Amino acid sequence: MKSHRKELWFEVPQRRAFINITSQVEQELRASGIKEGICLVNAMHISASVFVNDDEFGLHADMETWLERLAPEKPHGQYAHNRGEDNADAHLKRTIMGREAVVAVTGGKLDFGPWEQIFYGEFDGLRRKRVLVKIIGD
Amino acid sequence: MKSHRKELWFEVPQRRAFINITSQVEQELRASGIKEGICLVNAMHISASVFVNDDEFGLHADMETWLERLAPEKPHGQYAHNRGEDNADAHLKRTIMGREAVVAVTGGKLDFGPWEQIFYGEFDGLRRKRVLVKIIGD
Amino acid sequence: MKSHRKELWFEVPQRRAFINITSQVEQELRASGIKEGICLVNAMHISASVFVNDDEFGLHADMETWLERLAPEKPHGQYAHNRGEDNADAHLKRTIMGREAVVAVTGGKLDFGPWEQIFYGEFDGLRRKRVLVKIIGD
Repeated sequence: MKSHRKELWFEVPQRRAFINITSQVEQELRASGIKEGICLVNAMHISASVFVNDDEFGLHADMETWLERLAPEKPHGQYAHNRGEDNADAHLKRTIMGREAVVAVTGGKLDFGPWEQIFYGEFDGLRRKRVLVKIIGD
Repeated sequence: MKSHRKELWFEVPQRRAFINITSQVEQELRASGIKEGICLVNAMHISASVFVNDDEFGLHADMETWLERLAPEKPHGQYAHNRGEDNADAHLKRTIMGREAVVAVTGGKLDFGPWEQIFYGEFDGLRRKRVLVKIIGD
Repeated sequence: MKSHRKELWFEVPQRRAFINITSQVEQELRASGIKEGICLVNAMHISASVFVNDDEFGLHADMETWLERLAPEKPHGQYAHNRGEDNADAHLKRTIMGREAVVAVTGGKLDFGPWEQIFYGEFDGLRRKRVLVKIIGD
């Protein structure tokens, strides 16, 4: 069994954003030489997410609005976590969006349906944060 | 390391449904000959879900009501994604329910607790869509 | 490819709780002898969760409040599932929090960012329930 590991770094210049990282993950898959296996992609921070969805601008705007409705940022004081912090909502938003994606590797490629793309979901940006790519297989 | 891959196809005759696919996944596990490893089951479409829960009719009715409350389908015009589309809610519902299940394989069987069953969650049906089963191990 | 399997048992003395199980998972990783691979940790019950987040008391209190808002326990009669049962809300809460975490194994350790910890989320306690740890790799 072979394995490959890479950290992808991001510094998002605002609090929240969705970034398509599919091509960066594909680059690591090529570097791994793995043809059959599993690719794990996860946020290494607990106020960020990795998820699979559509790369469509309207949908991303809908997600932002929707997450603000389900887990609003403000008022910061509504959360017990926000003593000296202001990012409780980021932990909750990431919970809805998910920490990780596990993607099949087949024939040396990410085994995706027609519209599947991998995103980094940042909910507490303005600082350097990491995503882990770990690929195992043969 | 061995690997096995299969696409399961569904054409749900209504917009939304939950379908128990456990026996189809078990059939692929037997076909794989894999005794120890990991079984990934994921929706290949971004408006559908694969998740593990109880096969209980009342619970499924509750989930339908609950998802409509958290991410209502209508009015379609409330979503920026719905220009020429009407399925923004399906993307959001699938986000709550999850894209994938990763299940341990032990002794050639899905290593499940007493009530765990795998479901395909369709949120934008009336067309042919796919689930991927990828099993790796020995 | 090596594999290792362990069930962790819990009996939570109240209906809901979050329990940090990171050290128990690390112990299984050491016992496995696996240096490179993947560690799957999942609830074996459909009214419980395994998730990765911060070990911070205020955040856990926020999560409890938030989950009660999104999927309230009472009145029990609001759910079709609750005929002879009273735990429909536990199935929904676990859906938001997730069934499983998949964690990379690198150099014989859980490959975590600075604040990542693994939790067992109990939403229908007062009885013995299990978490599965399955590790595969070399």
